[in-house]
Amino acid sequence: MFSKNIQNLKTSPVRELIPYSKKAKDAGVDIIHLNIGQPDLETPKEFFEAIENFGERTIAYSDSSGRKELIDSIKKYYNNLGINYENDEILITAGGSEALLFTLMTLFNAGEEVLIPEPYYANYNSFFAMLGIKVVGIPTKFEENFKLPEKSVIENLITEKTKAIMFSNPGNPTGSVYSKDELLMLNEISKDRNLFLISDEVYREFIYDGKDTVSCGTFVDNLDRIILIDSISKRFSTCGARVGTILNKNKEFMSYILKLCQSRLSISTLDMVGAEALYRCMGKDYYEAVNKKYMERRDFLYEGLNKIDGVVLNKPEGAFYCIVELPVKDATDFSKWLLGEFSYDNSTVMLAPAKGFYQNEELGLNKIRISYALELDRLEKAIKIIDLGLKKYNNK
Amino acid sequence: MFSKNIQNLKTSPVRELIPYSKKAKDAGVDIIHLNIGQPDLETPKEFFEAIENFGERTIAYSDSSGRKELIDSIKKYYNNLGINYENDEILITAGGSEALLFTLMTLFNAGEEVLIPEPYYANYNSFFAMLGIKVVGIPTKFEENFKLPEKSVIENLITEKTKAIMFSNPGNPTGSVYSKDELLMLNEISKDRNLFLISDEVYREFIYDGKDTVSCGTFVDNLDRIILIDSISKRFSTCGARVGTILNKNKEFMSYILKLCQSRLSISTLDMVGAEALYRCMGKDYYEAVNKKYMERRDFLYEGLNKIDGVVLNKPEGAFYCIVELPVKDATDFSKWLLGEFSYDNSTVMLAPAKGFYQNEELGLNKIRISYALELDRLEKAIKIIDLGLKKYNNK
Repeated sequence: MFSKNIQNLKTSPVRELIPYSKKAKDAGVDIIHLNIGQPDLETPKEFFEAIENFGERTIAYSDSSGRKELIDSIKKYYNNLGINYENDEILITAGGSEALLFTLMTLFNAGEEVLIPEPYYANYNSFFAMLGIKVVGIPTKFEENFKLPEKSVIENLITEKTKAIMFSNPGNPTGSVYSKDELLMLNEISKDRNLFLISDEVYREFIYDGKDTVSCGTFVDNLDRIILIDSISKRFSTCGARVGTILNKNKEFMSYILKLCQSRLSISTLDMVGAEALYRCMGKDYYEAVNKKYMERRDFLYEGLNKIDGVVLNKPEGAFYCIVELPVKDATDFSKWLLGEFSYDNSTVMLAPAKGFYQNEELGLNKIRISYALELDRLEKAIKIIDLGLKKYNNK
Repeated sequence: MFSKNIQNLKTSPVRELIPYSKKAKDAGVDIIHLNIGQPDLETPKEFFEAIENFGERTIAYSDSSGRKELIDSIKKYYNNLGINYENDEILITAGGSEALLFTLMTLFNAGEEVLIPEPYYANYNSFFAMLGIKVVGIPTKFEENFKLPEKSVIENLITEKTKAIMFSNPGNPTGSVYSKDELLMLNEISKDRNLFLISDEVYREFIYDGKDTVSCGTFVDNLDRIILIDSISKRFSTCGARVGTILNKNKEFMSYILKLCQSRLSISTLDMVGAEALYRCMGKDYYEAVNKKYMERRDFLYEGLNKIDGVVLNKPEGAFYCIVELPVKDATDFSKWLLGEFSYDNSTVMLAPAKGFYQNEELGLNKIRISYALELDRLEKAIKIIDLGLKKYNNK
């Protein structure tokens, strides 16, 4: 009765936990959310000011391709990174989500294959399922901080149905950052085998310890195949303002994306007005200050969790996530138990079971993803709760 | 290299005109846009006030299903129409466009068929093409103001691949309104043949002369199959605020729509804050005042065009569109000529060639769609230009 693709949409493992978190919340327990990639930092005031100063009295459709002023500002933002895209090589979408959906819709026929290093952002699965795209995981190892395997391993996964390699860098859920050499290797494969490279760079400004990486937008020999996905959500703490970007130099590809943009007429006019001000007003100082804040949290979390017996994690290099191995058999069960049966100082934590980020769920069974977009005092309490919770859970 | 479905996306006939309108604009000619369904009325101040008073300092993701306060307000709006939907039977989307895309995505496998009275809103074609849906036009006649044919005519179009009947009421591009009896007939077919009924009612508040019609939400014997599509865009002159609604009582259908909503995380938080205030604050007085304004324009346009030799049109019953037959062979050519070679008082008009609204383009060849969401003085000038333009064009 309903579409086969839509019936294949999975429920994310975090959703399994919602009845438990609801029960805890109803019982008055304070839940520290380590499961949500939602920055807690304030949205810069420039966003609100631009919207308040919006002079028009009718909220009209904007251009389907995005407001020109916004595209100009994004172009300048990239110029400052040493990356050059012309205005017609930049299209504005309703968040990074729509950017990805339109990109996949344009590249893939049902049954075609995408290569993606796993673990990967679970929401990608929804788009793959909607479009009937077959996912082929590129294996990476927790012990090696999820670095890419050798070129030949990836090449051996390519079939005549492979259309693209897709990844996020810095990585969600891994918090790892690909080196320039790893990215150059993907670029070589893209050129040799004529595959698109979909580079989700929404966490670009969150890279720590000066890790040697680059935007794929710097690979000027292959910008027809490289599709950059970007968004204001994390960069400016504006997840609820839906402004994403697709950047690419392939005229045919961009003409299809434009048609998809036209099909939904316009994205939010006011969100674009705010986003334009952010790209125009926020500079190096802002990015550095935010980066410093997340790095502090990263250090605090890493040291805290490392002290807990049996807990294993890599030092996150970017974004605000990490995968953590716990001394339990089933991290989903532990996550439910924390919400349903444990509290400390009337608080508990909500975790994201890592199995949802793997094609091969076994690999994620004893792992969780933590998002550390929280103040230090909340993180401190969360670490304490995980520590005490593990002791009690394992002595049940 | 690219998706077959996406390569089938058509370019709308209005887009053909854009180079001509650009040239006219660059030459300093004032273009009166009769081609765009974009209300010129001011957005009510309540929308802006609610956004200014938004107290949170971080623009966070909202619930994927939509903000609860907004759903509450929409529920009340429907209650006032005598239509009852519970909160979990209402999902919020990025405009009516996303509501339609998600609905079609959920119902249709590629190759399945939708029945739709033609002429119909050209943008629907993009969604049909993206999803590989086959369109089967239900024939209607210009001379009969596009009323539905007899039941048997529609039934004969149904095959085992037919999944749904879809229409907008009041109609874009026709400006006609289906009577209660016509809608009841569609409801009977839906029940008898187990077909979904997708009723796009975004122009619901724009019905003139007390025409006897109803919302399909009143057909309480079939609300599992009836999918109401709604939006704030036209109702409150807020096209650039992307807030649509899907209403339906089929739990399985709504569970899939919710998953699609979750896949794109959230729509614009601020747009929903504004929309909530509109649904809460705007009442009968507002709807009546707006309705009166559009009816004045409708009367003015109808009388003005009717006086032009060879121009034929039906009196529009709703929305702010009408299909107009012109005494020319090819309305697209005439539209280009108006933009490229004609002006009066340094002004010209941009029309929407009607062929883009038909599966069978022949039927629309000598017709245009006019959108009359413009002040009377602009309409007066536009009518004058069409009159003078036709005389000159036909005497070339």
